[in-house]
Amino acid sequence: MTVTNLDFKYLGKSFPRKGGVERVTGAGIYGVDLTLPGMVRGGVLRSEHAHAKIKSIDTREAEALPGVFAVVTAKDAPDVKYGRAVIDRPMLARDKVLYRGDPVAAVAADTEATIRKALKMIKVEYEPLPVVLDAEEAMKPEAPTLHEKVPPPANLPKDVQAKNLVAYIPVHCGDPDKAMEQADYVIEESYETQMVHPQYLEPRIAAARVENDGRLTIWVNAQAPFGVRSEVSKLLKIPVNNIRVLVTDIGGGFGGKATGIASSASLEPICALLALKSKKPVLMILDKAEETLATTVRGAVKVWIKTGVKKDGTIVARKGRMIFDTGAYSGFGAQAGGRCAQMLAGCYRVPNVHVDGYVVYTNKQVCGAVRGPGGIQAAFPVESHMDSIAEKLGIDPIEFRLKNVPEPGETIAGGLKLHDVSLGQTIVKAAEKIGWGKTKLKENQGIGFACSAWIESGAVGGGAIVKVNEDGSATLLIGKVDYGTAVRFGIPMIVAEELGIPFDEVTVLSVDTDTAPWDAGTVGSRTTLVSGEATRLAAVDARNQLFKIAARLLEANVEDLIAEERQIRVKGAPARGVPLSQVATAAHAELGEVIGRGYYEGKAIETEEKEKGSSPPFTTHAALVEVDPDTGHVQVLKYVAVHDVGIAIHPDGVEGQIEGAVVQGLGQALCEQVLFDDKGRTLNTTFVDYLMPTANITPEIEPVVVEGYLGTGPYGAKGIGEIPCVPVPAAIANAIHNAIGVRVRKLPLSPEKVLRALREQKGPR
Amino acid sequence: MTVTNLDFKYLGKSFPRKGGVERVTGAGIYGVDLTLPGMVRGGVLRSEHAHAKIKSIDTREAEALPGVFAVVTAKDAPDVKYGRAVIDRPMLARDKVLYRGDPVAAVAADTEATIRKALKMIKVEYEPLPVVLDAEEAMKPEAPTLHEKVPPPANLPKDVQAKNLVAYIPVHCGDPDKAMEQADYVIEESYETQMVHPQYLEPRIAAARVENDGRLTIWVNAQAPFGVRSEVSKLLKIPVNNIRVLVTDIGGGFGGKATGIASSASLEPICALLALKSKKPVLMILDKAEETLATTVRGAVKVWIKTGVKKDGTIVARKGRMIFDTGAYSGFGAQAGGRCAQMLAGCYRVPNVHVDGYVVYTNKQVCGAVRGPGGIQAAFPVESHMDSIAEKLGIDPIEFRLKNVPEPGETIAGGLKLHDVSLGQTIVKAAEKIGWGKTKLKENQGIGFACSAWIESGAVGGGAIVKVNEDGSATLLIGKVDYGTAVRFGIPMIVAEELGIPFDEVTVLSVDTDTAPWDAGTVGSRTTLVSGEATRLAAVDARNQLFKIAARLLEANVEDLIAEERQIRVKGAPARGVPLSQVATAAHAELGEVIGRGYYEGKAIETEEKEKGSSPPFTTHAALVEVDPDTGHVQVLKYVAVHDVGIAIHPDGVEGQIEGAVVQGLGQALCEQVLFDDKGRTLNTTFVDYLMPTANITPEIEPVVVEGYLGTGPYGAKGIGEIPCVPVPAAIANAIHNAIGVRVRKLPLSPEKVLRALREQKGPR
Repeated sequence: MTVTNLDFKYLGKSFPRKGGVERVTGAGIYGVDLTLPGMVRGGVLRSEHAHAKIKSIDTREAEALPGVFAVVTAKDAPDVKYGRAVIDRPMLARDKVLYRGDPVAAVAADTEATIRKALKMIKVEYEPLPVVLDAEEAMKPEAPTLHEKVPPPANLPKDVQAKNLVAYIPVHCGDPDKAMEQADYVIEESYETQMVHPQYLEPRIAAARVENDGRLTIWVNAQAPFGVRSEVSKLLKIPVNNIRVLVTDIGGGFGGKATGIASSASLEPICALLALKSKKPVLMILDKAEETLATTVRGAVKVWIKTGVKKDGTIVARKGRMIFDTGAYSGFGAQAGGRCAQMLAGCYRVPNVHVDGYVVYTNKQVCGAVRGPGGIQAAFPVESHMDSIAEKLGIDPIEFRLKNVPEPGETIAGGLKLHDVSLGQTIVKAAEKIGWGKTKLKENQGIGFACSAWIESGAVGGGAIVKVNEDGSATLLIGKVDYGTAVRFGIPMIVAEELGIPFDEVTVLSVDTDTAPWDAGTVGSRTTLVSGEATRLAAVDARNQLFKIAARLLEANVEDLIAEERQIRVKGAPARGVPLSQVATAAHAELGEVIGRGYYEGKAIETEEKEKGSSPPFTTHAALVEVDPDTGHVQVLKYVAVHDVGIAIHPDGVEGQIEGAVVQGLGQALCEQVLFDDKGRTLNTTFVDYLMPTANITPEIEPVVVEGYLGTGPYGAKGIGEIPCVPVPAAIANAIHNAIGVRVRKLPLSPEKVLRALREQKGPR
Repeated sequence: MTVTNLDFKYLGKSFPRKGGVERVTGAGIYGVDLTLPGMVRGGVLRSEHAHAKIKSIDTREAEALPGVFAVVTAKDAPDVKYGRAVIDRPMLARDKVLYRGDPVAAVAADTEATIRKALKMIKVEYEPLPVVLDAEEAMKPEAPTLHEKVPPPANLPKDVQAKNLVAYIPVHCGDPDKAMEQADYVIEESYETQMVHPQYLEPRIAAARVENDGRLTIWVNAQAPFGVRSEVSKLLKIPVNNIRVLVTDIGGGFGGKATGIASSASLEPICALLALKSKKPVLMILDKAEETLATTVRGAVKVWIKTGVKKDGTIVARKGRMIFDTGAYSGFGAQAGGRCAQMLAGCYRVPNVHVDGYVVYTNKQVCGAVRGPGGIQAAFPVESHMDSIAEKLGIDPIEFRLKNVPEPGETIAGGLKLHDVSLGQTIVKAAEKIGWGKTKLKENQGIGFACSAWIESGAVGGGAIVKVNEDGSATLLIGKVDYGTAVRFGIPMIVAEELGIPFDEVTVLSVDTDTAPWDAGTVGSRTTLVSGEATRLAAVDARNQLFKIAARLLEANVEDLIAEERQIRVKGAPARGVPLSQVATAAHAELGEVIGRGYYEGKAIETEEKEKGSSPPFTTHAALVEVDPDTGHVQVLKYVAVHDVGIAIHPDGVEGQIEGAVVQGLGQALCEQVLFDDKGRTLNTTFVDYLMPTANITPEIEPVVVEGYLGTGPYGAKGIGEIPCVPVPAAIANAIHNAIGVRVRKLPLSPEKVLRALREQKGPR
C-alpha cells in the first residue's frame, strides 16, 4: 500500500531549521552559558574502584573548607533507587560502588578550584571486591555477585544457571530444531561488538534552583526531560507538580543524553540535592574524562548465530544466543538487549527462530540508548552472517537477500507481522546505486551490503498543543527536545501545512516540563513519527475549531472549508474567504483561544482486515572499500544508504540524518571503542586516545530515499533518526570480505584485526 | 433558583494562597528584582504641555552622550496607532502631545543618572495649543479640537452638536416621557465624581530582550499580558508568535495595570523599541510622579438624573445624561462610560429609561479600568438620588428600595433580563446587620445604604489547561495573572476538588503568553467566574480521560467512577479503586499525557424556557458615620457590606476582596482626587499630597456573604473583585445626609464640602 497522494503546499520542501543560523554562529544558550543570580558550582566525587564496599565516608574536612556550601552523600537523600527493567541504582553510591566513575559524593562551592580541593578532602574508606568485566564471565557461578538484592529474571528457565542477570529475552517462534534437520546447510558463527561512547561534543550539565515558592527548577541538556523530572521526583520525594525541568540548547546527544538520569550518572538529582542543601543555585558541568568514564554507552554483545538454509537459498531456521553487557546497573540494557535479540532473527522471512538473550551486569559503565540501541549489535552479526551463508551456498548476496524478503502478512524478528514491505526495493536500489556487478573493482577493493529494519519500539506516546494566536500565527508545544531532529523544521512545517500559514508564523517552544505535553523524549526515531502525528492532529483539531467559527462568518458548511494563504475559504470559491486572523480573534470571545490538542501513541498500522500490522522502515546500505593489505587499513571509497521513510516531510532533514548516522556507524565499524584495564579503569577518556571517525575516513555518502510505503507517522512518514547507523559495520565487514576474502567477526574492524585476519588466511609464516 | 447542593470536599474551605507567605516575607520576584545579563535601563521623556504641536525633536546631543545606547522617538516606530473604541494613540507622540505626561521620546542608557542627563538633552520644539480640562467644556463648539482625525461617533444623532466625542451611549427603553407625565413626583438632581488614580504601590515596569532566535521577550507587571502582546505586535509589526510576554509578581493593580499598554502609557512597546534599537535587554521602572501623572485613572463624570415616581414609591421612569471624561485618548473610556450609563438606570425595576451618555476627550491623563470601572461613577449619583426620592416621598429608604426590587424575568439597567434576583435579600440583611431602626444613634450620627448590581461585561472568555502528571499531581495553565484574585487559592481548589487530589499537588503556573491559554486578563471580576469555570471544565475533561483508562483497569463503567483521595474508585465500592498515579502513568503510553482543556466565555444563564437571563451579583452596603459639624470631618464607625456571590468557593478570599474594595471605595468617597492646574499640569503626584485612605479612616468592616443564587461561574459562583467598592461613596453620602441632613453631590465628600453644605443649609451667616 502506498501513501495517499496528497497535494502538499509545504511538505516535501526543506525549510531552514528555526534557530539554525543562531546555533551555528554561536548564539545558542547552552548549559555552560547559564547564569543564575547567586549561582555556585558543583562537582562529583567518583569511585576509583570498579567494585568495592563503602565502609565509611567522612565529609567533615571538606565541609569545613571555606567556599564550600554543601557536601552531599547518599545519607542526604532518601534511601530510594531508580532504574527501568530493574530498580537497582541509588543516585549516590550507598553501600558499594559498582564501576569506576560511580558517584559517591558531591560538593557545591564557590569555584572549580575549591571543588577540586574539597573532593580530595572527602575520605572514603573502601573494601575492594573482585571485579568482573566480561559479561560471559559474569554469568558464571564463580563470578562475583554485583547486585545481591536483585533476583534472577522471573522468566528465566529453571534449568539455566547464570549469575548477574538483568533480563532474559527469549525470541522463539516455530520449531527451529525440526527445521534445522530439514535444512540443506547449517551455518554457525560467533560475533562480538564493542562498547562505544556516544561522544556528543557538549558535556552533560545540570543546574538546579529552589524557587521562592519552594518549587524546584532543574536545567538540563537532556533528551528526555520528563524522565529526569519523574526520577528526581521519586529520588527526592518531591511531587512531580513541584519540579520544573527546563532544557538548554544541546550540543549533540545521539541517545547518550536520553534515558533520564541514568545517562548522566544521576547528575540532575545530585545537582538538585546540592541546591536544596546549599540553598543556592548550583551549576554542574562534567569534564571530558568524567563524561567518557561515567555516563552511558552502547553496550557490547557477544553473539552465537546459526542458520539453516535450503540449497536454493531459502532460510528455514535461525538459532542464536546473545550476551549483552549492560554494565554496573540495568540502565537501558534490557531494552537495547531486547531489541538486539529480536533483530538477530533478521529482517527476512525466518519462520523458525530460537534466540536466547541474556542481559548481564559487569563492573563497567552503564548501557544507555546510543542511536539505534541494540541495532548495530544485531545487524553486524546477522548481516555478516548473511554474506557467510551466501558464500557457503555460492549465491550472490543480493540474490540471496531478495530470495528471503518477506511478503506483507508474514512476520520478521520472531513475530512482528508486516503490513507493507519495502525491503526488496531498498536492496535493488542499493545494488543499482553502488554499481553491483557493473563497477569494475580494482585489486583489494570490494563491495558489501547490509540490510535492516527498524523494529517499532514500545509505546512512547506524545502529545502536542497548537495555539492559534489572534493574528493567525501559531505556537506549538511539544515535549520533544530540539537537538537536531525535526523539532524545528519538519514539525512546524506540519502546522503551516494544516493551518495554511507561513512557516515563519509558527513558533515551536523549547521544552519546559511545566507546560509542554509529556513526552518520552527525543528518542527512538520518534520526533516526526510521534510528535509529528500528534502535531498534525493538534493542528487539525485547531483548524476544525476555527472552521466552526468561519462557517458562521462565511455562511458555509464546515465540510466545504479549506485553510490556505492565511485565509479560511470555501472550497472551489476562492473569493469567499475570511482572514484566519479575523476568525482567530473572533474565537477569543467564544473560546478564550483556539487550543488544538493531539495525542499519538505511535500505533501499529491496522490492515484492511482490521488486523494490526507494521510497516517498519527498511534499509539497505552498500559500501565500496579498499583495503591496504600491508597495513590492514580500510578506506571506504563510496557509501550508498537507501532508506524507506514512507514520505520525506523535510528531504534535507532526512538526508542529514542519514549522513550523520552513517558517519557514526563508520566510527563503530572502524575505530571507536572504550578500553579498560583489568581493574576496570577506563584507559581512553579523551579524544587523543578514543578514536572518532573524522573527515579523512568519511567517504562520499549517497543518501537515497524510497517513498511510498505507509508508515505510522504523519501522512505515512517513518522515523529516520537511528536506523542509518545500524547496517554500517556489517556493510563494511562484507565489503572487506568481498575485497580480500577475510571475515572479521569482532568490532571495530581495526587495521590490527584486518591484518591478523589476513595473516590467518595466509596461514602461519 | 438556588445552587445545586453539592457535596464538596475542598470548596468552601479557605486554603492558604500559594506563594502567599513568600510574598509577604519579601521573596517575590517583582519587576525591580529583574536581572538580565547585560541589562541596561530605560527612561521616558514626557510632555510638559497638556496640548501642543511637536514642531521638531532633536536627539543628536543625547545620542552622543557616553553611556547612552539608544534614543527613540515616534520616527523609530511604524506609523501605527492603538486604542479600543477609537484607534487614536501612537506609542510615542508623533505630531502633537495631548496631556502632560504624554511620552515623546525614550532613552536606554547605563545608569539612571545618564538617562536623566540624556532626557534633558533631547530638544523638543513645541507649539502650545489651547487646553481643555473639563469634559462638558470640551463638547462645546468653541473648545479646541483634540483629535483632528477622529470622526464623531457613528451612532450620534444628527441633531446633537458635540465636539471631542469618543462615544455616544444611548440607554433607552420604554417611553420615559409618557411615564414621567403619569408620575406623581419627578425628582431631578446632578452629581459629579472625581478623577482618582488606582495608586497600586508597585510602579509599572517593563523589560524587553531580543532573544537569540530573534523573538522578543517582554516582562511586565500587567494584569492583561495578552493585551500587551497583541498591541506590541501591531505597533512594532511583529507577528504575535514571535512575542513572548512574561509576568513578574505584581504589587497591586486594581485595574490600573489592565487595559494593555494604555494603562502604562505605552511603556511596554517603548521598552521593546529601545531593546530592538540598543540590542540590549532594557528595564524600565516608572517613578511615583510619572506613575501618577502619566498612567490611567478612573475617569470623572458629570451626571444629570431625573426620576418619576408614584406616591406609593413605584419608580416609573428615569432620564439621565452622563458626560464621561476619558482624558487625552479613548483608553477604556467608552467601556467604563458605557457601563456607567447603563448603571444609571439602576439595579431596580425601571421600565422606562432614557439615559444619554457622552464619552469625551480632554487634555488630561487617560481613563483606564480602575476597579469596577463606571460603577462608582454611576452608583454615587443613582443611589444618592434614591435617598433623595425616598426623602421626597417620606418613605423609609429601605422600604423604598425593596418596593422597587425587580422580579426574575424583569429587566434592569435598560434591558438586562434577570434570571435570579438576590437584591431584596441583600437589602434586608444589610438593614439588619447595621441595626437600621434599632441602633440608637447619637447626635451627628447617621446610617446610609446603597445598592448595586455588577452588570456582566462584554465577552471576555478564557481557557484553561490541566495537565495530570504521572504521580497524579496536576499542573494548571490559565491566562489569569495572579495579583491577588483567586488565581492561587480558589482556582487550584477547583482542580483538587474535581481530581480528588490534595491542594498541594496542584501547581498554578505564572502567566507566560507562549504557553498559557489566551485570556483577556485579570479584569472584570472574572478570575473565578471565567477562569474558574474554564478550569473546572478542563479538570473534568482530564478526569474523563483518566476515567476511560481506569474503567478498563477496574473493569467498570465510566459512569460509575469517582475521583477521591488520589484514587479512582467505583461509586459505592470504595475497595474497588486504582491509584490516580497508576492511571496517569498508564495514560502516558496511550495519550502522551492527560491534557484537560476548558473554555468558558462567561455566558448568560439559560432559563428553563431556554431564554437567556442574567443573575448578576447584587449588593447592599450600609454605613454608620459620625460627622463633626465644626470641621466637616466624616468618621465612618461601622460598615456592613452584604454581597451575593452565588457560592463562596474560598470564603476568606471573598471577604478579603470585600474588605479591600470597601477601603478603596472609602478613598474615593472621602479623600482621593487627582488635581490639575489650569494648564493641565498634575498638582499632586506623591502620597504627600494625594490623600489615600489609611487605617485612621478605615472602620470595622463586616463582610456578609449571601449564597444560593445561581451565578454563571463554576458551581454557580459570581465575581466579587470589583463590586464591593461600587456602593461605598453613595452609602457614606447617604449616611452623612441621615446624620446631619445635608446632601453633598460631588466627590470626594471632603471636610470642606461637608462644611460648605452645612453652611448652605444654615443659610448665610
